[in-house]
Amino acid sequence: MHTVYSRKLVKSLLDRLVIRLSARRNMAATIDDGSNGNLEENFEQVVTMETVVAADNKGIDYNKLIRDFGCSALNESHLERIERITGKPPHHLLKRGVFFSHRDLDAMLDMYEKGQPFYLYTGRGPSSESMHLGHLIPFIFTKYLQEAFNVPLVIQMTDDEKFFLKKHLTSEETHRLGYENVKDIIALGFDPKNTFIFSDIDYIGNSPSFYQNIIKIQKCITFNQVRATFGFVETDSIGKIAFPAVQAAPAFCSSFPETFGSRKDVPCLIPCAIDQDPYFRLTRDVAPRIGFHKPSLIFSTFFPALQGAKTKMSASDPNSSIFLTDTPNQIKKKINKYAFSGGKVTVEEHRELGGDIEVDIPYKYLTFFVEDDAKMEQIKQDYCSGKMLSGEIKKELIQILQPLVAAHQERRKLVTDEVLAEFMKPRKLEFPGLKEPKKK
Amino acid sequence: MHTVYSRKLVKSLLDRLVIRLSARRNMAATIDDGSNGNLEENFEQVVTMETVVAADNKGIDYNKLIRDFGCSALNESHLERIERITGKPPHHLLKRGVFFSHRDLDAMLDMYEKGQPFYLYTGRGPSSESMHLGHLIPFIFTKYLQEAFNVPLVIQMTDDEKFFLKKHLTSEETHRLGYENVKDIIALGFDPKNTFIFSDIDYIGNSPSFYQNIIKIQKCITFNQVRATFGFVETDSIGKIAFPAVQAAPAFCSSFPETFGSRKDVPCLIPCAIDQDPYFRLTRDVAPRIGFHKPSLIFSTFFPALQGAKTKMSASDPNSSIFLTDTPNQIKKKINKYAFSGGKVTVEEHRELGGDIEVDIPYKYLTFFVEDDAKMEQIKQDYCSGKMLSGEIKKELIQILQPLVAAHQERRKLVTDEVLAEFMKPRKLEFPGLKEPKKK
Repeated sequence: MHTVYSRKLVKSLLDRLVIRLSARRNMAATIDDGSNGNLEENFEQVVTMETVVAADNKGIDYNKLIRDFGCSALNESHLERIERITGKPPHHLLKRGVFFSHRDLDAMLDMYEKGQPFYLYTGRGPSSESMHLGHLIPFIFTKYLQEAFNVPLVIQMTDDEKFFLKKHLTSEETHRLGYENVKDIIALGFDPKNTFIFSDIDYIGNSPSFYQNIIKIQKCITFNQVRATFGFVETDSIGKIAFPAVQAAPAFCSSFPETFGSRKDVPCLIPCAIDQDPYFRLTRDVAPRIGFHKPSLIFSTFFPALQGAKTKMSASDPNSSIFLTDTPNQIKKKINKYAFSGGKVTVEEHRELGGDIEVDIPYKYLTFFVEDDAKMEQIKQDYCSGKMLSGEIKKELIQILQPLVAAHQERRKLVTDEVLAEFMKPRKLEFPGLKEPKKK
Repeated sequence: MHTVYSRKLVKSLLDRLVIRLSARRNMAATIDDGSNGNLEENFEQVVTMETVVAADNKGIDYNKLIRDFGCSALNESHLERIERITGKPPHHLLKRGVFFSHRDLDAMLDMYEKGQPFYLYTGRGPSSESMHLGHLIPFIFTKYLQEAFNVPLVIQMTDDEKFFLKKHLTSEETHRLGYENVKDIIALGFDPKNTFIFSDIDYIGNSPSFYQNIIKIQKCITFNQVRATFGFVETDSIGKIAFPAVQAAPAFCSSFPETFGSRKDVPCLIPCAIDQDPYFRLTRDVAPRIGFHKPSLIFSTFFPALQGAKTKMSASDPNSSIFLTDTPNQIKKKINKYAFSGGKVTVEEHRELGGDIEVDIPYKYLTFFVEDDAKMEQIKQDYCSGKMLSGEIKKELIQILQPLVAAHQERRKLVTDEVLAEFMKPRKLEFPGLKEPKKK
């Protein structure tokens, strides 16, 4: 199958490569893009903060990513250990390898078993009115972790970063989008007794402790570091350049004095998609220099675009995404029209050879949303054997997503301004396992 | 007279020049420092945020600085206009040319005369326990402006910037130094009814409006701009790089909602030393892009070091400075031992040729602190004619500074924590001349 790269995509990739090469070599680099159409053959995956592109429709090679990023693989023993500690079966997103990698998870579990529990921190950059299916994944998993370990959670809305990154958005608008997104997050069923959600634009100006941690982090990071880590360039705004410290600060418990009092020793576990790792590599570098535990991380894969796993679902490309505001009919149409199929061209051929689940988007989406392992195994067998047709697996997905999204919309309607205010008020959170720090 | 430059000074100057050249030309520049000792002949003054060095002991050539910076000279007509508007004689620091330059002062006075008064904004970077004489000058002049025009004043303590700039100072320490310095500022006699003093480290985390203005400014400024403006380099911290937006924000009235309500149209006049101009050039560039008046500025010369007007008084060189904590005896000793004299080597020669007031530090200091024009003229005549000896003009200075500093120390003792808290509480300030904005 011949794959077509749009000029825009190729241009964007080349730009990113030039920037990254320049940053690494600290010199101007050029790339010959008169590549005679051979670009695809030599093309390697790119995973940066701004671009995620796989080499082909099988999606990102996550083993390669683990090697490149220097993080660790999650394996069976982690799943068994989590089950043993929490007394709950591992989440299907763990079993399916959606959460596939970590940094220092073992150390975090060691502390937990010794009676020193962690808090959870995750976040969201509000760049669109509505969140899409892919945005839900880290929150669904975070909610599982929160309930399994019975620990508090802080959720950062990086409305300030989105304002820096989006030329035409005002801070008032990113702030508003943030609040819209918070409603979607709350609708997933978080509990206000141990969940604090905050907008940077609101919270930084209302928390001296948070700002004091930000400046401590900012002093430890140079322009050279953010250039090498994120590919920032000299024409970037000083807001964008300084922002990584704002994303780092919630990993340190003293940023939340209402929640953790004067403690500096409560460790932090961050569930997030793997493209956020650069932020937290910097955070982990800085942590011991300013007297904090390094945060631990647990990483997810990307949620693929409808058009195929070569790119991730993106709110800025509506046809690539199923939004949480979509109607049942929109969901049906988008899946039938856009979802990249691993099915064969004719029914006869499909019945003989079966579908290719390595590239089939409906199959991949089902792995995210079908909890039942037996059912999933059945679908796999039927589809690979050719018993289940491409249209049938799409129908299966439609029948799962339509009620899932509709139920989300119903729950979201219940998120009033009062509920929003309750979650977003800085306050003490329930944290039953937390022991007093050891006296010297 | 042969002047000796220390190796350290020369090295520092060369470094700064290389940085500035690199920044301007956007390329690596080198300077041959095998200069055969001819450095002095070709040496031009350097005025940056971090370095102020004149070509010789006459001090900075301020006419050249006005041309280089592109600001405007204050002239007789400004003094007459200020006297006419305020009904008060111009301050001796204006008459003596200590405040010598401005940006858009005329526009500010036009608005004032039309019934649209401004607020004043100045600041201090707290890098030392005690302030020195030179630090007083902008505050003495600001107090005169505040009283003459009857307008509110905000004073920013940039304890965050000092934390970024000083490798070995913690933010807790710069914050503490800020509070010590605030006591000195209050001791000058400011009135809490229309003066608000704030520490960045405290206030930014307590004012969403201030932070919101900071990010709006940060989005408008690139690394290239701060590199060209301040000579920042790639190894600088992202805190230092982003800080110029923090110094810009108080120039916009909506940073102080407790003081100015929801208004965005109250103009700002900034009295400061001329080395702060780069910050406010950037601020003026940004202002119209985010919907504010450009601030106007009125600039002072530098307060020279005891050792001569080649450099300015610096708290980091105790021998160059008379501190507000010095005893009468310390003041006497420092002036007699260190104050650079324009007197002649022998009494006979001095009687014949007279002292050189262009380089004489005691004379220069007297111009800052003696209000009486007739007395100043008498000292000038006596010293230039040789009637007054070098020891005598030093004695004159000692007799003025000893009681001035002692009185300051007495007033400072009265600045209790309660007084401090009163000045530093965000609140409405008296602003009798402020009219309601015009309805459309």
